[in-house]
Amino acid sequence: MRRTVAFLLVAAAGTAGCGEESTPLPRDPLEPYPATGVTRTVELTVKETSWEVGPAAVYNAVTYNGQIPGPPIEVNAGDHVVIHLKNETKEPHSIHTHVVKFAKASDGTDDSVVAPGETGTVEWDAVFAGSFPYHDHADEAQGITKGLIGMLIVHAPDEKPATEHQVVLADFDPGNYASLPGVADPVTGEFPDGGTYHGGHQYMHTINGKGYEDAIPPFLGNVGDLSRWRVISIGTEFHTWHIHGHRWLGGDGQLTDNVALGPGQYTTFEFEEDNPGDWLIHCHVPTHMEGGMMARYVVSP
Amino acid sequence: MRRTVAFLLVAAAGTAGCGEESTPLPRDPLEPYPATGVTRTVELTVKETSWEVGPAAVYNAVTYNGQIPGPPIEVNAGDHVVIHLKNETKEPHSIHTHVVKFAKASDGTDDSVVAPGETGTVEWDAVFAGSFPYHDHADEAQGITKGLIGMLIVHAPDEKPATEHQVVLADFDPGNYASLPGVADPVTGEFPDGGTYHGGHQYMHTINGKGYEDAIPPFLGNVGDLSRWRVISIGTEFHTWHIHGHRWLGGDGQLTDNVALGPGQYTTFEFEEDNPGDWLIHCHVPTHMEGGMMARYVVSP
Amino acid sequence: MRRTVAFLLVAAAGTAGCGEESTPLPRDPLEPYPATGVTRTVELTVKETSWEVGPAAVYNAVTYNGQIPGPPIEVNAGDHVVIHLKNETKEPHSIHTHVVKFAKASDGTDDSVVAPGETGTVEWDAVFAGSFPYHDHADEAQGITKGLIGMLIVHAPDEKPATEHQVVLADFDPGNYASLPGVADPVTGEFPDGGTYHGGHQYMHTINGKGYEDAIPPFLGNVGDLSRWRVISIGTEFHTWHIHGHRWLGGDGQLTDNVALGPGQYTTFEFEEDNPGDWLIHCHVPTHMEGGMMARYVVSP
Repeated sequence: MRRTVAFLLVAAAGTAGCGEESTPLPRDPLEPYPATGVTRTVELTVKETSWEVGPAAVYNAVTYNGQIPGPPIEVNAGDHVVIHLKNETKEPHSIHTHVVKFAKASDGTDDSVVAPGETGTVEWDAVFAGSFPYHDHADEAQGITKGLIGMLIVHAPDEKPATEHQVVLADFDPGNYASLPGVADPVTGEFPDGGTYHGGHQYMHTINGKGYEDAIPPFLGNVGDLSRWRVISIGTEFHTWHIHGHRWLGGDGQLTDNVALGPGQYTTFEFEEDNPGDWLIHCHVPTHMEGGMMARYVVSP
Repeated sequence: MRRTVAFLLVAAAGTAGCGEESTPLPRDPLEPYPATGVTRTVELTVKETSWEVGPAAVYNAVTYNGQIPGPPIEVNAGDHVVIHLKNETKEPHSIHTHVVKFAKASDGTDDSVVAPGETGTVEWDAVFAGSFPYHDHADEAQGITKGLIGMLIVHAPDEKPATEHQVVLADFDPGNYASLPGVADPVTGEFPDGGTYHGGHQYMHTINGKGYEDAIPPFLGNVGDLSRWRVISIGTEFHTWHIHGHRWLGGDGQLTDNVALGPGQYTTFEFEEDNPGDWLIHCHVPTHMEGGMMARYVVSP
Repeated sequence: MRRTVAFLLVAAAGTAGCGEESTPLPRDPLEPYPATGVTRTVELTVKETSWEVGPAAVYNAVTYNGQIPGPPIEVNAGDHVVIHLKNETKEPHSIHTHVVKFAKASDGTDDSVVAPGETGTVEWDAVFAGSFPYHDHADEAQGITKGLIGMLIVHAPDEKPATEHQVVLADFDPGNYASLPGVADPVTGEFPDGGTYHGGHQYMHTINGKGYEDAIPPFLGNVGDLSRWRVISIGTEFHTWHIHGHRWLGGDGQLTDNVALGPGQYTTFEFEEDNPGDWLIHCHVPTHMEGGMMARYVVSP
């Protein structure tokens, strides 16, 4: 599997004693970072929220702390994370994450689901660096679709300083909107004020909890940045993330400007920012683009 | 394309004569293993099968040897494989595989499709190691959806001993079920006994031919295992394979716990098992999770 | 991120002075090729076209130069590309590409959209090698679905001579066909002459602008070729590209014969051709295979 990389590391080490100065071996990503001794405590409340996805587009959401995505949980590799989850709704909910170490008792399933009205605690060892989703796992994926999603960011100690951008890609249920532009209320027959009717798939696909350029805050950068992107896909669909005017090395060693991420997948990539402009940034699936997953990345010279 | 890896191999070789002990070069995955001289003969019969996917969920399947997936074909790299395919149905069927070497005459298409009532033979040189799908290819993908799928495992000679897990992800046609829990027979109007109604997409997405935790045999492991996963996706949908509480190095060099596989794709990965518990393991696409693609991975301490 | 590869490059360089002949370092794919001083000028006209996708399957297309895909734009890395886009339709259209360098003013969005009846110019620096899509971006993805798609090929200076195959995967809107085999005209009630009825999803999924083996020109090769495949996926769906009887090293270091590409994704791979025959080559998604995305790769001995 990883034999090629492993061998090359050995070969490089084997030649290090050949009269040249020793070069340090690269770090194995599977090696946990040592504990920092720091514990970060996070207070999250699960609550029903009328979440504005865009003008006149209001979602009957269930959220962490009243927002979609929930607040970023940002820690250093090696930190211990304690999460107190208070459930103010009438359904069980939880918090589950990916990759970082936790025991079964902190998985956000089975015994770590928090009953209505209760508070539960889970604990993670954030000993692996990267960008990972956190989300509800109480009733399979129902909570994900309602808005119980967020990002866990674990900074490696030797991470280069960068301008970081967080991207949470999600899919919302059109039947769960309290109001949508241009759509009559099924009970009263009234249309909401304002907003723009975007077609049948409107507001089904969101970036950072919002739909369309007029609601999604633009990503901001400057020429000369080390531009780092932390992207999680945590909805029902397979998405791509495409940045106009830019390129980076994909996981397969080929240049790319359009990375694919299925539900529950995540990636972190970076590039040297060198191209000023007001660039489109979006999922390249046409119905998703048209359904809200289109934003701007504004790079100042 | 692969220039970077190729160069590094050359560089490592070029420095090997520098007074240091020679380190063996890694094996090029594209180099066929030498013939072992062993021929493995496999007898497969294609037959109509009432296949129980779960309690009260019975599929009008067509199978290899009465089971979904068909029996694993497990050989050593370099073995010659001879498959006698007997077709006991009224439609043409075949067996086709991926990556391992075969001539056009053994491709499972055109002249190697087996007519109803006949027996045909195909031969493969299993000279590449890995985990690959085998499946019907007589009438495009009709046979795949009926259940004519299975896994070919080719063990490399230097493979480390591991606890292996085989995962076959498939998608079944709801219109092809003889019975489904909570659904009245369209002719008699009667409901089947037993089973649990799982919603509209029930039993459309399966793991190793079964749906839901109560029917899919749990995957079993022990702390200290080298845990090796052979995963094939051989249905109609793009899936992911997510293991709670664990992580491995993805193909892009980043840590992952959730690999994506489209129809006809396959992967093999492994990790050191270190986390006891009764873990959920599933496709992370919500409708697939809810449609049956959810199981357990039980790790004993 | 790319620390492992970067380190290994440094280590190899560090050992180069150890009495051995210097081995050249591999090229960083992110490094732009130097300007060649050559400018290639391309004249493209956007026009409404009745495009025959197959017998009796005629698409109400909008095309670059009357064909789907548009003419390949084939240049050397380092060339400057000037595109004059003349819009002979009644809707705004544009040309946008991926990865190669351009300023915002040549992005094919906003100010570089060409109004009906006008001609506009965009300029790209093709300083990165590979195979990339070009496509309309005037009204999100409407133009893509109508047929405004094509391939940009940028040859690296040290590219080995190969037999090259260009593959453009696209998805067409069934509601946009002027005629389909076996389907009565909604106005006249008449059936078209000829063609073969392929089922409900017929002609929704195409290879190089055509559907099914009888219309898609076969790919042709010879044993002994270096067989290079340039594949872009530029429709609405996630596809795979599967070649029977062959294999290559996938981006994750494992052998594959079936690569996945979402909308707007692209890849280039190659293998030594060694297997004569009339091979099937197709997307492995069953509805796409059945919908037209099935062709032949004929390898002569």
